[in-house]
Amino acid sequence: MSPLEILDYAGVAVFAATGALAASRKQLDIIGFLFLAAVTGLGGGTVRDVVLGRSVFWVMNPTYILVCVGVGILVYFTAHVIESRYRLLIWLDAIGLGAYCVLGAAKGLAATGSPTVAIIMGMLTASFGGILRDVLASEPSVLLRPEIYLTAALAGAAVFTAMHAFGPPLFVSAGVGTVAGFGVRGGALLYGWTLPRYKPRPGRHPDDVL
Amino acid sequence: MSPLEILDYAGVAVFAATGALAASRKQLDIIGFLFLAAVTGLGGGTVRDVVLGRSVFWVMNPTYILVCVGVGILVYFTAHVIESRYRLLIWLDAIGLGAYCVLGAAKGLAATGSPTVAIIMGMLTASFGGILRDVLASEPSVLLRPEIYLTAALAGAAVFTAMHAFGPPLFVSAGVGTVAGFGVRGGALLYGWTLPRYKPRPGRHPDDVL
Amino acid sequence: MSPLEILDYAGVAVFAATGALAASRKQLDIIGFLFLAAVTGLGGGTVRDVVLGRSVFWVMNPTYILVCVGVGILVYFTAHVIESRYRLLIWLDAIGLGAYCVLGAAKGLAATGSPTVAIIMGMLTASFGGILRDVLASEPSVLLRPEIYLTAALAGAAVFTAMHAFGPPLFVSAGVGTVAGFGVRGGALLYGWTLPRYKPRPGRHPDDVL
Repeated sequence: MSPLEILDYAGVAVFAATGALAASRKQLDIIGFLFLAAVTGLGGGTVRDVVLGRSVFWVMNPTYILVCVGVGILVYFTAHVIESRYRLLIWLDAIGLGAYCVLGAAKGLAATGSPTVAIIMGMLTASFGGILRDVLASEPSVLLRPEIYLTAALAGAAVFTAMHAFGPPLFVSAGVGTVAGFGVRGGALLYGWTLPRYKPRPGRHPDDVL
Repeated sequence: MSPLEILDYAGVAVFAATGALAASRKQLDIIGFLFLAAVTGLGGGTVRDVVLGRSVFWVMNPTYILVCVGVGILVYFTAHVIESRYRLLIWLDAIGLGAYCVLGAAKGLAATGSPTVAIIMGMLTASFGGILRDVLASEPSVLLRPEIYLTAALAGAAVFTAMHAFGPPLFVSAGVGTVAGFGVRGGALLYGWTLPRYKPRPGRHPDDVL
Repeated sequence: MSPLEILDYAGVAVFAATGALAASRKQLDIIGFLFLAAVTGLGGGTVRDVVLGRSVFWVMNPTYILVCVGVGILVYFTAHVIESRYRLLIWLDAIGLGAYCVLGAAKGLAATGSPTVAIIMGMLTASFGGILRDVLASEPSVLLRPEIYLTAALAGAAVFTAMHAFGPPLFVSAGVGTVAGFGVRGGALLYGWTLPRYKPRPGRHPDDVL
């Protein structure tokens, strides 16, 4: 398998695991586990392929679906032994973010040649599966949490795109980009890294304004 | 009309009715009724066609839009005579689920030949319109309710896909699949059927974990 | 630039500003501003292009992304001087609605020739970016507020589509359609215009019904 294929399967598997963990937190049944695993694992890449006008990866190769099914079943039978399923969810999500920001950037670059499009596709691919998971499971979105999230996806996609321009072998730039994305997100989780948040004042409720 | 076309119009009409009923529960205006009817009626099939890389069905044939408009107007003027609009919504949704899990599976099978893709497309098509409806109307998602939902879509799609392999006329396998999907969902609504839910413990709030 | 291109950049810029204002209300960091600006500014047009089976506009021309980035940075550094960011958000959203309902209708008409599809694409393009913004920022959706919203998009798209059939220069029909859409929405905001809402009774909670 090429470095990008390995990243792809790894990203699908860990995002699928976060979907299944969200299902366990909501006490869904086994089919709910499989559905949330599949939507989370395949969602980001599906949006990426549709926006780029490519064939959707799991329609071409159903093995990805079977990976999600396997991961969903595994989590259903093992999640109870984990002390904090949400903490595991967050860390697996960080690994998926690292893999998917590079993968999205690589596909965006291959399709258009534009570094701007590549970086946006990296951020979109890395975040969209998690957004779908949080919306479907009615969890507060990772996007709204204070710790750095999108910035990590941006960092990974930008590092990969910049290195790619200088032409080292793909597995080097893909590996360094993945580690950069995961490293920034992991540091944020461990040490509470944040960017300065918009300070002046929080928003009022719409009903108090109109 | 072919059996699949009949199923398609039936699925669009009943899902559109559930969207309009959700609009009545939120006391929207007539245009809100038509919009929720159209999004719910056309949403699942739109995602199916986009993911399979096909032309979107209602762009090719605007009759489907007019069906949603007609249903939305009808519900606007008649919903008040119904004792429980939510119960009607849930039952119409069950009919739509039956029709759409077969239709999604049939299109997935025609496009790829893969039974795995067919079953996933069946589940996606049957559930996505309802997910959009619940998110847009801020209703608790049918996915998170305890009664069997996705399992019914899986059952209908799997029965259709399996029968199709043995080659009876399309209207037979489509009919049996639709009845299977509707039957499982209807049984769950009538008798409270559930699969065993994930037991060990509910999730804590993210703020109590991180 | 053609009249449609001007409308397109204007629509992207003002919707991007509403996304950034939502980010300021949620006190996100600068990357959160850029992401919500991009998703809101580009979301409606992305769905339009994907559903019509066209290449997505910002993948073809990354300038649109840079517009969103510039607007996001501008709002990050100036939002605190505005007395009511939500009121500004709502008014910019009204301008975007006017521009996008015409643009969506024009693209739908060019792709299919069907006035029905054109009007639906106009409503979808005008509303989808705002729906994504409200869902991602966990704000109550503009769709559920009482003041006329979708009706304004419908009015603008219908006026444009009807005028277009009689063949005045594109900039005339596009201009009149935009003013119609913005005017109806603006009147609703200023004078509280509403269509009659569905009256009989609000919906009960699902748990009280099933």
